[in-house]
Formats: sequence, C-alpha cells, structure tokens
Amino acid sequence: MIKTRITELLGIEYPILQGGMAWVADAALASAVSNAGGLGIISSINAGADVVLEEIRKCKKMTNKPFGVNIMLMSPIADQVAQYVIDEKVPVVTTGAGSPSKYMEKWLEAGIKVIPVVASTAFAIRMERMGAVAVIAEGGEAGGHIGEMNTMALIPQVCDAVSIPVIAAGGIADGRGFAAAMMLGAEGVQCGTIFVTASECTAHDVFKQKIIAAGDTDTIVTGKTLGHPVRALKTPFTRKFAQMENDPNQTPEAIMEFGSGSLRKAVKDGDEKMGSFMAGQSAGLVKKVQPAKEIILEIINRARELLKDTSKCI
Amino acid sequence: MIKTRITELLGIEYPILQGGMAWVADAALASAVSNAGGLGIISSINAGADVVLEEIRKCKKMTNKPFGVNIMLMSPIADQVAQYVIDEKVPVVTTGAGSPSKYMEKWLEAGIKVIPVVASTAFAIRMERMGAVAVIAEGGEAGGHIGEMNTMALIPQVCDAVSIPVIAAGGIADGRGFAAAMMLGAEGVQCGTIFVTASECTAHDVFKQKIIAAGDTDTIVTGKTLGHPVRALKTPFTRKFAQMENDPNQTPEAIMEFGSGSLRKAVKDGDEKMGSFMAGQSAGLVKKVQPAKEIILEIINRARELLKDTSKCI
Repeated sequence: MIKTRITELLGIEYPILQGGMAWVADAALASAVSNAGGLGIISSINAGADVVLEEIRKCKKMTNKPFGVNIMLMSPIADQVAQYVIDEKVPVVTTGAGSPSKYMEKWLEAGIKVIPVVASTAFAIRMERMGAVAVIAEGGEAGGHIGEMNTMALIPQVCDAVSIPVIAAGGIADGRGFAAAMMLGAEGVQCGTIFVTASECTAHDVFKQKIIAAGDTDTIVTGKTLGHPVRALKTPFTRKFAQMENDPNQTPEAIMEFGSGSLRKAVKDGDEKMGSFMAGQSAGLVKKVQPAKEIILEIINRARELLKDTSKCI
Repeated sequence: MIKTRITELLGIEYPILQGGMAWVADAALASAVSNAGGLGIISSINAGADVVLEEIRKCKKMTNKPFGVNIMLMSPIADQVAQYVIDEKVPVVTTGAGSPSKYMEKWLEAGIKVIPVVASTAFAIRMERMGAVAVIAEGGEAGGHIGEMNTMALIPQVCDAVSIPVIAAGGIADGRGFAAAMMLGAEGVQCGTIFVTASECTAHDVFKQKIIAAGDTDTIVTGKTLGHPVRALKTPFTRKFAQMENDPNQTPEAIMEFGSGSLRKAVKDGDEKMGSFMAGQSAGLVKKVQPAKEIILEIINRARELLKDTSKCI
C-alpha cells in the first residue's frame, strides 16, 4: 500500500487513476482497475446518458471499491450525467473540456470528490478555488483531447500553483513515469493508453494490437485548426484528416463530418480504415495485453524499486 | 560530485549540459557553466564561422574544464565549424537538425565525443551505430527547434532503444525535473531556457526579464507549416508569424522573410517587437538572474534531496 494525499483522499491502495476514455472506459474496465487497488473511471461519452447510468449501476455490482465517472463538459448529455452521479452516489467525478462551475455546488453538497483535468496553472488555481479536491494535470503527450503544455514542464508548475494534490497524466505507462511524476511533485498518476490494452477492457482487439505495435512516433495530433487538438495513432483516417485540415478548399464542417463517429468505429468495430484510435505517446511503452491488476502492480513495483534505488541518489 | 556515465564520460562534476542556443551560447556562458562543474556549450549559430572560432579560443582561455560546441547541421557554415572543432581540439560536439554522418569519421578519429540531439528512438539507434557516445533526447517542451515527442514519453523509450547513456532535455529547469529525468532512465540533463538568465549570459536583459516574467502557457510553437517548428515566447512577433502561417494568401517565402534575423534581434537588441525570444515551457519555472554556478547547485541540491527523500519511497 502506498500513502499519498491521493490514496488517503480517495480511499484507494495505489495512486493510479485510469483515464475516463470515451467509448473505452466502461464498467468492465473501471471495476477491474478499482478492484486492483487503483481508481477506475467510467466515461460519459459512449452510447448516451442511459448507457452511462447502466454502466454506473453495473460497476457498483462489480466492485465495492471507490470508482469515478468522467464528465466531458461540452457533451450534450453532461447535465443528465451530472445528476446521475449524484443520484447514484458516485464517490469521484473527473471533468474534462471546460469548467464544471455550473455543477460544482450540487456535487460538493452531495459529497462528491471533484477532480478536474487541467492543462495550465491558471485553470488549476480556478479549480482549487471552486472546491476541487485535487487536479489531474495532463500534458500533451496524452491520447485524445490535449492541451498545449507537456507533462515535464506542466506538473511542477501546477504543483507550485495549488496546494491541493496533483495527479500527473500524459506519457506515463510504466514505473519510470510514475517515479518521475513523484519527483515532479505529483502524488498520483492517471494512465489512459496502457489501460486500453487491459484484458478486462472491452475495446476491440484491433485497437489493443495497434497500441502494442506502435512505436514512439506513431501518434499524430489532428484537429488544431478546429480548436480541438486530438492525439491518435497514425492511420489512414488520421492522415486523411490531417490532409483535409491543410487543404484550404475544405470547410471545418466537411472535416467534422468526415471525423464523425470515428472513435466509436475504432473502439467498437476495430475499423482500421475509418476508426480514430486515440492513444498517447506512451503507446510505444505498451508491450502486451494483461489484466489491470498486473498493469498496476508492474507500475508500482518498478516505481518502488527506482524510488528506493540508492544508486539513483546523487 | 555525482557519478553517472555522463559525468565519467565527459569528465565533469555534475551531469548538466547547457544547451547550445543559437546567438546565446558563447564563450562567456559556456565557460561559466563548465567552471561551475557542468558542460558549457558554444553555439555555431551566431555571427559566422570566424566568430565561432574566436569563441572557442576565448573559451579555452576562460576555463580549463571540458566544454562543447553545438553544430547545427543545416547551417551553411557547418562544414567550416566541423573542421574548427578538430583543429581546436574541442572535446565534445553536440549536433542538431539532422544527421552528422558526413563528419562522424573524422570527428571520431580526432577523439571528439559526439552527442547528437535526437527526438525519436529510430534516430537515437542510428546515432549509436554511428559512434555517438551518448544522445540528448529532447522533448517538445524545449525552446527553439523542436520535435514531435515530449520528454515524459520520449526519455524511457530512447533509454530502452540504446545502450549508450541518455541525456534528457525539454522542460527541465530545476531539481524536480533533474530527479524526474533520472527516474525515466536518463543519466544527465540538458537545460537551455534557465541558462539564458545566467548572470554570465550575454543575451540582452530584455530577453532574461521576459523569461522571468513568463508563466506556464506563455510560449507558442510556430513554423510547423514551414517544416521547422520552433518554440518561443508569445510576443507581437510570434503572434504575427502564427497569423501569417494561417493566412492562405501568404507564401512560405514571405513568412520566412518576415522571420529573418528575428532571433538575433531578440538576443542582441532585446527587440520586443520584432525579436523571436526562443524559450521552453520551463520558462515559468525560472524566477531570477543568477550565476551559472548557483543555477547548477540549486538543481543538484534539490534533486539530491528529492532522490534521497525516503517519504518518496512508496
């Protein structure tokens, strides 16, 4: 067992959160991670609000440990899910893509621990003032929607800016990244990419195999021209998307239409042509499909060795 | 004194290299860093090959410790400087922006230790095969010309790919970053931005003050459309440059013409309007002008505390 303010706060054994990945993070994955001693998180972005509710209820049956729900604030179902987490007494909510201000009061009243994802010190400070119990500071090496700052420079600056605990995300998939995050001042990490390959994850096997096959430079960022940069594996789809963004004859509408549904196609159908396989730069560190518990223990054991290794003492 | 393969290899006290920043890294800065126990590096990009030669000779008078020269391989004076480092028996050469293959044989014959800057595992492997004694793996949070990979994900992957020692760069400006780099597997770090603010650095005071004033999100990447992404502080110049890149009516030639000489204007003249103040995302961590020796000792002492801190042992 590890003691940081994050493990204490969330009542978990290991300060490892599983990212609330759209379409990927369901009850199966979240409960596996929570049962393994980390914090599993269900995404609110999948087949609609009813499905989210169903996954929350399923998860409660699959684990008696704490778990969380990620609410993508720009989603049309955000209001609904914001209420479900209260009704269902979900202990932890993480938020992305905006400010949770409109929900904050009622979540805090309901005793929910709110942990926003932040990509800058200014936003971290706002979230602390608003009542967040911690922040997830996520660097641009992460998969999916990303910000401008990168992990190595972001974490220490956020740690200096707030007094609530900081969870590091972006580029972390093994004990080295975990130990590095601790040195930067974080008290926990959030991993996304490596949990896609967890045995319990219901994402299509093509997705898992693509992450395992990926090398360090096999991701690409698209969507900058649309104001929403997204990191995903280089595939025919993402290459075409990038090409359309560089083509002055394309409209943002046409590009968005082209991208519509691409994540679902990747996760559910393993569609190698039209799927958007969102993944971070840590994909190159992911070597195999294995149970969530093994993923967590390997991270922790390697980090423990590194942090105790006196030859690293200078 | 710290012992890693980097300190042993280079005969230095602390495994901290000072980046060979164009126009900034001259004999004054390099000798100060080398005298402080790190490895100072002279840039080959300033007022021409004769000036580089002069700076090398000056540096030898200012320190009897090892120092290096950075050769920007795309520079028109690369051939000349490649010969000067042999003639002047410069102990270490770092290279950027390409492959040093055409110079490698004669450098190795001359006993020069060659340390290329790399941004991917594939390139790191090529450099190791070619005879590099180490590589500097640089993430995209760095200032100046950058690659696609970010530090947190790049370092462990490069460490897995090569057996020569790895120096981490990008986003590192204090002991936390140093300690994190050690956890990721690096055996040294290279810092750029913080050394711009060294007392001994001859860069214009406006440049130093701008770095000190910068927060976490005050840098911007321009030049992607030209194939040469560069990170610099957000200023009227870089904003205009970014705007021109997004304007379909602008030609690459017009944009390059607009940018021409902008780094010199920043470093030498402190030109707030037309200068390109290249800096990394670590600018937000830099708080004051101080001697190079103080910079190095603060990094080392804080890293030492962190690496020895048993409360970080999990």
